[in-house]
Amino acid sequence: MHDRTRSEYRTQLSQELPDAAEVTDLRFEGPDLVVYTSTPEVFAEDDRLIGRLASSLQKRLTVRPTADARSSRSEAHAAIEDILPDDAGIRDIEFHPETGEVIIEAEKPGLVIGRGGRTKRRVAAETGWTVEVVRTPPMESETVSNVRNFLKQERGDRRSFLERVGESIHSGPADPEWVRVSTLGCCREVGRASFVLSTGNTRVLVDCGDKPGAEGEVPYLQAPEAMPLTDIDAVVLTHAHLDHSALLPILFKYGYDGPIYLTEPTRDLMGLLQLDYLDVASKEGRTPPYDSSMVRQALKHTIPVEYGNVTDIAPDVKLTLRNAGHILGSASAHFHVGEGYHNVVFSGDVHYTDTRLFNGADNDFPRSETLVMESTYGRRGDHSTDQADAERTLVDTVRETVRNDGTVVIPAFAVGRSQELMLVLADAMRTGELPTVPVYLDGMIREATAIHTAYPEYLRDGLRERILYEDENPFLAEQFEHIDGGSEQREAIASGEPAIVLSTSGMVTGGPIFFWLDVLADDPANTLVFVGYQAEGTLGRRIQQGRREVSLPRWDGGRSRVTLQLGVEDVSGFSGHADRGGLMDYVRTMSDRPDRVLCVHGDETATNQFSSALYDEFGMATYQPRNLETFRCD
Amino acid sequence: MHDRTRSEYRTQLSQELPDAAEVTDLRFEGPDLVVYTSTPEVFAEDDRLIGRLASSLQKRLTVRPTADARSSRSEAHAAIEDILPDDAGIRDIEFHPETGEVIIEAEKPGLVIGRGGRTKRRVAAETGWTVEVVRTPPMESETVSNVRNFLKQERGDRRSFLERVGESIHSGPADPEWVRVSTLGCCREVGRASFVLSTGNTRVLVDCGDKPGAEGEVPYLQAPEAMPLTDIDAVVLTHAHLDHSALLPILFKYGYDGPIYLTEPTRDLMGLLQLDYLDVASKEGRTPPYDSSMVRQALKHTIPVEYGNVTDIAPDVKLTLRNAGHILGSASAHFHVGEGYHNVVFSGDVHYTDTRLFNGADNDFPRSETLVMESTYGRRGDHSTDQADAERTLVDTVRETVRNDGTVVIPAFAVGRSQELMLVLADAMRTGELPTVPVYLDGMIREATAIHTAYPEYLRDGLRERILYEDENPFLAEQFEHIDGGSEQREAIASGEPAIVLSTSGMVTGGPIFFWLDVLADDPANTLVFVGYQAEGTLGRRIQQGRREVSLPRWDGGRSRVTLQLGVEDVSGFSGHADRGGLMDYVRTMSDRPDRVLCVHGDETATNQFSSALYDEFGMATYQPRNLETFRCD
Repeated sequence: MHDRTRSEYRTQLSQELPDAAEVTDLRFEGPDLVVYTSTPEVFAEDDRLIGRLASSLQKRLTVRPTADARSSRSEAHAAIEDILPDDAGIRDIEFHPETGEVIIEAEKPGLVIGRGGRTKRRVAAETGWTVEVVRTPPMESETVSNVRNFLKQERGDRRSFLERVGESIHSGPADPEWVRVSTLGCCREVGRASFVLSTGNTRVLVDCGDKPGAEGEVPYLQAPEAMPLTDIDAVVLTHAHLDHSALLPILFKYGYDGPIYLTEPTRDLMGLLQLDYLDVASKEGRTPPYDSSMVRQALKHTIPVEYGNVTDIAPDVKLTLRNAGHILGSASAHFHVGEGYHNVVFSGDVHYTDTRLFNGADNDFPRSETLVMESTYGRRGDHSTDQADAERTLVDTVRETVRNDGTVVIPAFAVGRSQELMLVLADAMRTGELPTVPVYLDGMIREATAIHTAYPEYLRDGLRERILYEDENPFLAEQFEHIDGGSEQREAIASGEPAIVLSTSGMVTGGPIFFWLDVLADDPANTLVFVGYQAEGTLGRRIQQGRREVSLPRWDGGRSRVTLQLGVEDVSGFSGHADRGGLMDYVRTMSDRPDRVLCVHGDETATNQFSSALYDEFGMATYQPRNLETFRCD
Repeated sequence: MHDRTRSEYRTQLSQELPDAAEVTDLRFEGPDLVVYTSTPEVFAEDDRLIGRLASSLQKRLTVRPTADARSSRSEAHAAIEDILPDDAGIRDIEFHPETGEVIIEAEKPGLVIGRGGRTKRRVAAETGWTVEVVRTPPMESETVSNVRNFLKQERGDRRSFLERVGESIHSGPADPEWVRVSTLGCCREVGRASFVLSTGNTRVLVDCGDKPGAEGEVPYLQAPEAMPLTDIDAVVLTHAHLDHSALLPILFKYGYDGPIYLTEPTRDLMGLLQLDYLDVASKEGRTPPYDSSMVRQALKHTIPVEYGNVTDIAPDVKLTLRNAGHILGSASAHFHVGEGYHNVVFSGDVHYTDTRLFNGADNDFPRSETLVMESTYGRRGDHSTDQADAERTLVDTVRETVRNDGTVVIPAFAVGRSQELMLVLADAMRTGELPTVPVYLDGMIREATAIHTAYPEYLRDGLRERILYEDENPFLAEQFEHIDGGSEQREAIASGEPAIVLSTSGMVTGGPIFFWLDVLADDPANTLVFVGYQAEGTLGRRIQQGRREVSLPRWDGGRSRVTLQLGVEDVSGFSGHADRGGLMDYVRTMSDRPDRVLCVHGDETATNQFSSALYDEFGMATYQPRNLETFRCD
């Protein structure tokens, strides 16, 4: 099968390439077809040649010059400095002779690429090296630079890994025997998202998360549908939140050696959150189920995919990720099985409308017979406030607290909600709706924010430009202060001037939020504001439901019994999740409305009421699976 | 776990046994606990000792004397002949020194056993040998004697097999992690019955059949829920029909080496039908998926279970079979999982009311949260005629045909329907409702009938006595003639005097029925009578639906195109399956009505309408699974 495929590609290339083009070798690297050529100038001269080939081969294409077609590194270095404009802000130029690639890191990648890719192609034509461009993050991010350095260092290993994956994607039968979805978690509950999509030939694991507030409850990876883990063909991660990603590294502990498909920002955020997961576990005296070497293993096996690119991930499965509007890099995953045989969409966590940070979810899948759909806010009454109203309420609450000399503390996911709140607060302070007071970012919020600025392409249209071109990066506003000291710094802030604190974790299950509750609890002038979903079993949920006597773990390992005398407010409308209306709209506006929907990622009432509503409104077959079930789709 | 269990049994035994009893060893053989004793007389003296022990240990118990506690074979032989009454009709006495058992085959086993087991115990007390009694079939059956001889010959191997199974049943965790049912076939279709019941620790395969009329469609044994087949812990066969049993031997081809639990008659019928399955396949030029050595493997791995006996089949699963009323030895299988954790019933094929042959299905399960239920006649209109009316119609049709000098041909399953019809015809001829004409039994019908007479305990109360005690065996009536010649004999019958022919196969998919249709087609005086379910895709169904131009395979390998000019009649009411009312009654009268029912073994309309009816009438959760799905039960 595979050899036939390779020779088919060769035949097609020879028909479509100009006579002058010499192809010396064809290889698969992961989902990509790599064309080695001794005449790189032929490719560089024609603006649209590679695009035309990619589209007629229906294949992502990389063209690499053979070694003798390239100029020396020093010549190439000089040519690059000569060709690129000074204001591109070149930070680093790195040559990889084994692939003929040169990686250029720049503050303004657009200027390295040039209009329609012209500048980049000119470098390629003059030097014979293939150019890859990466952006220097406007805020320094340890995560981004660690991830990039690690992947650079592993480049050799990764290449053989990609070749191995490439061979396996391009071999084996392309006709599926069946299509099934198995639920390893996340059914009639929020947490431990994990599913297997299987075709008889191929098994794809979608997500592998933990369950906030119930650390022992992990995905049922021991189910026969997932076993042996070594035989899974591919993993797809919809987004980096721990309830989708926390247990991914454990796959490598049990011998999985295949790829993880995800967006680039999801890759970086995943690493950040998984390391934090280990850190929190060890602080809480739990033995984490894997160690940091497994996080590196996971990272090493990532294959980034851009929104909208159709990517072969198995002989009979193509993956397309689309923006899910939930957090940075979050995606809905579309699987095209066989040649037009069946289509399954996993919504992942979605936000249907635009927010300040992100464009609303993109549900424009050409076909989708089966939909596995999140249902977090699927209850009949789950109508969330308009964000404009929510912002007003938040600003009012903050203003009132500040006026009373109090401090506002907001438990927030480091990734997503925090940046949304930062934009709201910065804007309110800019327009004078709020007095400018310090906004302290505790936990990983600053780092997560820096990662956002490294991937402006993934942000909402207007915001992207503000960060990229206008140097109006709102995240750099001076009232934002990262907490980098210890408890003294926090105590000083708590007893000092009015301020706002954004602190992890978002559901009050760990992290510095415990400390803030402890030190702010006594003073009724302070306010605790919930802005996000609080899952069953979390302390956040219990406080939200009226509990005021709480026991908080202290840094020293003891626990404080605390009576919460501070105000507690619930501001809905900031959720990263679509509300009931948004969920219905997501399904209603799909280009091809599915025949069946599995309602998952919601408590029992939510999945029940949402599936009934979908059935009533659209007449589609709807299910509320339980964990450990398997559904036939085709 | 296992050692603790064994020592627990030992402790309990020592508390409950009289002081004089010496237990030298305890072993597990399959589900049984074998007690070795040097004082067999202590067990033989007390009528109820073994029964009391078995019930307090909740364990089937076998007591075996140690070698030095036994008299010599010749002494024992003399003692047996001395003790047993002459009219017991002893046919064979066989000693097995390795187990201390003596197997006595007798025409009247009751006389060997004696009232309350007295005679049998007296033999044991006087000789030190343990007595096992088997019945000599009133009709000679090649199958029964082949099976018995084979199992005798394999006794050594079987003993180590049983010890291995015994160890595995009594080891491992007894707490199930979950309870699931997976569908490998038989969903929205009739045929290829096969299910997996799994608990996280244990996997049990229930049935493994073919699909009549669609030979290529076999159970999805390659589903991950069943793989690897070598790791399956136990197989349970509900009854011998090929749509439940045909593919069982293939498990051994793929390395399965565990037990098959079934009733004794199912064991014998299974062997008969599987060998016939191979024979038909080779006659039709198909390559069968296994050979006869695999049938022997299957036979060698059987562990017979009696109706109502609770049997440990895994550390966390107990099996109880109950009469399903469908064919000889047919059973519904009740699985008790964990210690009161969950109960699943597989109805198997059921007939709810009494027939001439069998008592109606026994649905008296103490608990049953989940029911996997057959739905063959689950449609709204599937009301079958009362059997009395059906018998009248049949007798009228036969009488009319005979009066017109015609021959009646009835395609019938060798097992079940044929014997029912024999009883009806014999009775009508005895009372003069029908003239006495020859009834020819073609295919395996005579052999199947002989097997029925070997297991009278499995027949309806009144019939059992007629066969056992009154020497009024209706199957021995002289008008029944087995076809043992070739096509000449059949041609002579077809052109001769009026007669009745019962011929396999029951759905006109193979066997001598093709020949009969061929030779009887031309004469409108002849009548073809359907008395059983004709599955989708079978020739029987097509003729039933009006097709009269048919192509029939000939013995010589060619095909005849034939126009059926004989009469075609449909006599409903003889089905081995409950009709819609019977199915509803089965569920209605269960001692513990299930929370959820999976409706299987019926076409799409039947499972759909039956599951709606169950939901409407009892408010239970009902499902119509598809093949390759998995449902959580607990």
